[in-house]
Amino acid sequence: MSGMDRNIYLSNMEVEKALGLFMERLKPQLEQWTEEEVNTISSLGRISAKAVFALVSSPNYNASAMDGIAVKAKDTFAASEANPVRLKKDLDFIFVDTGDPILDPFDAVIMIEDVVVIDDNLVEIIKAASPWQDIRPIGEDIVANEMIIPSNHHIRPVDIAAMLAGGVNVVKAYKKPKVGLIPTGTEIIEPGEPLKLGSIIESNSRMFEGMVIEYGGEANRYKPIPDDYQLLKDGLLKAVDQNDMVIINAGSSAGSEDYTVKLIAELGEVLVHGIATKPGKPAILGMIKNKPVVGIPGYPVSAYFVFENFVKPMIKSFLKQPLSSKDIVEAVLSKRVVSSLKHREYVRIKLGMVEGKLIATPLNRGAGATMSLVRADGILVIPQNSEGVEGGENIQVELLKNIEEIKSTIVSIGSHDIAMDIMANMIHQKDSNYSLSSAHVGSMGGIMALRRGETHIAPIHLLDEGIYNLSYIKRYLPNMEMALIKGLKRIQGIMVKKGNPKNITSFEDLMREDVQFVNRQKGAGTRILLDYLLSQKSIDAESISGYDREMTTHMAVAAAVDSGSADAGLGVLSAAKALNLDFIPVGEEEYDFAVPVKFLKLPMLELFVKLLKSEEFAKELEAGKIMYI
Amino acid sequence: MSGMDRNIYLSNMEVEKALGLFMERLKPQLEQWTEEEVNTISSLGRISAKAVFALVSSPNYNASAMDGIAVKAKDTFAASEANPVRLKKDLDFIFVDTGDPILDPFDAVIMIEDVVVIDDNLVEIIKAASPWQDIRPIGEDIVANEMIIPSNHHIRPVDIAAMLAGGVNVVKAYKKPKVGLIPTGTEIIEPGEPLKLGSIIESNSRMFEGMVIEYGGEANRYKPIPDDYQLLKDGLLKAVDQNDMVIINAGSSAGSEDYTVKLIAELGEVLVHGIATKPGKPAILGMIKNKPVVGIPGYPVSAYFVFENFVKPMIKSFLKQPLSSKDIVEAVLSKRVVSSLKHREYVRIKLGMVEGKLIATPLNRGAGATMSLVRADGILVIPQNSEGVEGGENIQVELLKNIEEIKSTIVSIGSHDIAMDIMANMIHQKDSNYSLSSAHVGSMGGIMALRRGETHIAPIHLLDEGIYNLSYIKRYLPNMEMALIKGLKRIQGIMVKKGNPKNITSFEDLMREDVQFVNRQKGAGTRILLDYLLSQKSIDAESISGYDREMTTHMAVAAAVDSGSADAGLGVLSAAKALNLDFIPVGEEEYDFAVPVKFLKLPMLELFVKLLKSEEFAKELEAGKIMYI
Repeated sequence: MSGMDRNIYLSNMEVEKALGLFMERLKPQLEQWTEEEVNTISSLGRISAKAVFALVSSPNYNASAMDGIAVKAKDTFAASEANPVRLKKDLDFIFVDTGDPILDPFDAVIMIEDVVVIDDNLVEIIKAASPWQDIRPIGEDIVANEMIIPSNHHIRPVDIAAMLAGGVNVVKAYKKPKVGLIPTGTEIIEPGEPLKLGSIIESNSRMFEGMVIEYGGEANRYKPIPDDYQLLKDGLLKAVDQNDMVIINAGSSAGSEDYTVKLIAELGEVLVHGIATKPGKPAILGMIKNKPVVGIPGYPVSAYFVFENFVKPMIKSFLKQPLSSKDIVEAVLSKRVVSSLKHREYVRIKLGMVEGKLIATPLNRGAGATMSLVRADGILVIPQNSEGVEGGENIQVELLKNIEEIKSTIVSIGSHDIAMDIMANMIHQKDSNYSLSSAHVGSMGGIMALRRGETHIAPIHLLDEGIYNLSYIKRYLPNMEMALIKGLKRIQGIMVKKGNPKNITSFEDLMREDVQFVNRQKGAGTRILLDYLLSQKSIDAESISGYDREMTTHMAVAAAVDSGSADAGLGVLSAAKALNLDFIPVGEEEYDFAVPVKFLKLPMLELFVKLLKSEEFAKELEAGKIMYI
Repeated sequence: MSGMDRNIYLSNMEVEKALGLFMERLKPQLEQWTEEEVNTISSLGRISAKAVFALVSSPNYNASAMDGIAVKAKDTFAASEANPVRLKKDLDFIFVDTGDPILDPFDAVIMIEDVVVIDDNLVEIIKAASPWQDIRPIGEDIVANEMIIPSNHHIRPVDIAAMLAGGVNVVKAYKKPKVGLIPTGTEIIEPGEPLKLGSIIESNSRMFEGMVIEYGGEANRYKPIPDDYQLLKDGLLKAVDQNDMVIINAGSSAGSEDYTVKLIAELGEVLVHGIATKPGKPAILGMIKNKPVVGIPGYPVSAYFVFENFVKPMIKSFLKQPLSSKDIVEAVLSKRVVSSLKHREYVRIKLGMVEGKLIATPLNRGAGATMSLVRADGILVIPQNSEGVEGGENIQVELLKNIEEIKSTIVSIGSHDIAMDIMANMIHQKDSNYSLSSAHVGSMGGIMALRRGETHIAPIHLLDEGIYNLSYIKRYLPNMEMALIKGLKRIQGIMVKKGNPKNITSFEDLMREDVQFVNRQKGAGTRILLDYLLSQKSIDAESISGYDREMTTHMAVAAAVDSGSADAGLGVLSAAKALNLDFIPVGEEEYDFAVPVKFLKLPMLELFVKLLKSEEFAKELEAGKIMYI
């Protein structure tokens, strides 16, 4: 489609208002939501639609609570050490095991340890038994007609046992709402299909599938539908007929989104188009044939939050379940986050516990940054009427992970190397109580994080007068007792496209008119190395085209070169190998770890140092490299 | 079997020591625990056995981040409001949608809102575009070879999306350990089979099934095996061959337990028999063919704790998962709990938040009390070296429920009526945020709980000089501003077996030699009523056989009469109907609710009062009664 006939109009409605509108319209459907009979033994995780009352008592007879003898209590009243009472088998007593029924005329049990066996037919006791002692009366556990679980109850393993013991073999549970998931977009391909230029692997619907299951619904995913109005219309109608609610997940193109709005309007009614959140603004809420239809934008992070804000409450409402309250912790925001007054923003947060202080570091805020959700420990919600939060402020973070897990995580902030991935993996493998979380802000960023007390370790590679790292620590952290743990030697070099089509062999070539460079951000060790090498060769940075284009990781630089958006960039050998680039080495550097001495004694840091020295780690680094060829 | 050849010997080992012994022996099996390939789209909830690295970048091309036009940035550098720049279609620009690839020679995107369309072939811009603006570079989200998730990671919906986006369609996950579950015992019947005298419905294995699934294993339940040595041996050997670990769940008779010990000793090795816990003492840990075998006692609560203490850590170890840390809250224990120095005790706790104070009330401590687990909000662990905890002491409680759920629960302590079950159900149905938890300690127990600030409401029926409830509140709660909410009128009467075989028609008959009475506990409204009626008739309590036998609920009294362990008891009509007993009415009583005035304004109490007055509740009470006939 051309760029001109687009529907640019969007409303900017608050989540709560939009959800309220939507739920109001859903009421009739929710009120007549049906239940089904489920076998008790298959009812794990289901929600009871009716209270469950016991049909039989448990135990359903008077049962011996001990191994011993059943007696008539009144026969024993006279017994004492001075005056033992003898009882005859079958006449005065019978042997019973725990659980055996106690029948008339017996009305008490004496445990076997208190019985002296005289011969095969005679026992002696020296203590009176009170009536009904050591007998579990009928219904001691569950009395017939007693309520076992109320309605709207999430059925757990122990509830299943209690219902069965109470004679309840079938339970009424709410039907699981069926959620139809329609991925759309001409550019979308199924996982495993050949990846062509411009094609995007369909993954959102698989995330939705998992979320639907976790929230108690039944996911019903359809094959992706290309951006064709009639095909979409047919697919949507079919899904509405086959499900209790439908999600259309647009491709990332605005075209798909417009189709969705028009389709819902044609087949039913659009209630809301545009929510005052970031990410998640272009959401669409509608009704077709009295069934809710949600248009979810294509960017994965937007998709996640629109699902959480609208689809989750719907599923929970069908199942009469409250929205589970979120675990909130207080943390210190490590750097400023600016937000717009126009929307509520959901900022993904990495948390770390450093010296008892919970530090919150914002992750990539892009709507397309799936990995920001994978890595997130929590969410910071910035309200619509706020311009953001200053660094150092206390904030409330909604936890996505267990706080205990966060507390036993080594926080690493600084330069990135693939070794950090390998280490993170190895630490968790060696002791699954521990994790390593690694934020990549460049070497100087790591030093500053140490200064602010926000990290346990900072991986750095900072060259000064031919010596790596020491002088930076002394200069920037003068009042801290610091240690430097030696890490790895890495080879830095100029990365160019395979085959070196522009024949770049030296820094001087970077000044050529036909060469586009891509740089690292200020404060990155690699940027400092570049500036050092350029100054040695008296090359003016201004003369390098692309010197100002900044990427924040080695891999991003390598990717830029690989894609042809740049001809050259400085970076480590492993990144060049990872994307199969040619590499002109410029020298070896030292990638080490700056650590406050006080942290060295933390068991998780001890494990880190132990693993760093291990042959296993060295091997993994080698093993790792094999993957990059 | 007779009572004489029993194996009375049991060790009394600490849980940690026993588990340590067991895990030490399991090490070789755990180290060689295998992984399997799982389709990424089916990997929800599985545990990664290897770190997952992206195979492709996402996006895997430079993509437009906007709807707009793709341009060559250098063509736009001169543009300003004073000096608009015109661009020719196809030559200088092309229209692009979000997600479209940006290819050479274009290197920037201008959003459509900033483009002035002149005609079909010409647009005008008034702002320079910087190179690579509004382009998502290759790998912006995920770079090929980047680690997406580490090993030993619990796979969530968002991880699935990220793996698919990174081109990973198959993931290595740990195999789920297969847990064979063998219910045993001659007295055991399957749910649905006719319930004969002495038979027990098998329910533990179904609880285990649920627990195995929740902890990440695969449950493999076998049909119950009677107490026959050869059958048990065959069944156990088969289960050991077919599973990674085996659980034998003994019937409650000691006989079954002995078979289990002997069998494990014969086929392999018994490591531990007897754990220093209550409930859960008679657990057995053994190895057969290098596979762990756990003998779990038959009482449901013992079964639960032995599973939690030994089987759960095993399943987690196979999956390299840490034992999830428990949520602990501090609470005030409402009454004294005495424990033995011989063992660690697990006390099931009902929690209630009354005026910001978390009150912990111990539930039925019997090993057979399944309902104590169903009702429990948490567990109080009393260490082995402790004699117990005094009432009023601060204790640590391991939460089984969400604390928010507990905070929005009306705490009711006092007399029991089926109406409380109906109310509990109705409150949760009307607003699933609220619950009602009801502890049954008799009317005076409720009054005392109000005095100690441990409950929101106390259901009472206390007769004094012909007037119900008022004088008790005034006498026992003189300094509290109290309200009395009128509840229901109930008919009290003498319950006797169907057909009234002993022809009991009055209180005078209770004094007969051939009549066994069963009473309620001291402080119960019904007991107070009995004493009042006896004194009116000048009947001496001493002259009633069974006056000292105490039950704590109407239903327990009814069950005693039904089972023939008593001939008569005083109680409410609904209890008699529930168990189909004959009933000789002795009068109507008033079952009301004592509430401190300050609580009346709590929204959950407002809901309670509203429902109490509702026609719906009246109908439900009637509807409820239908079930008791």
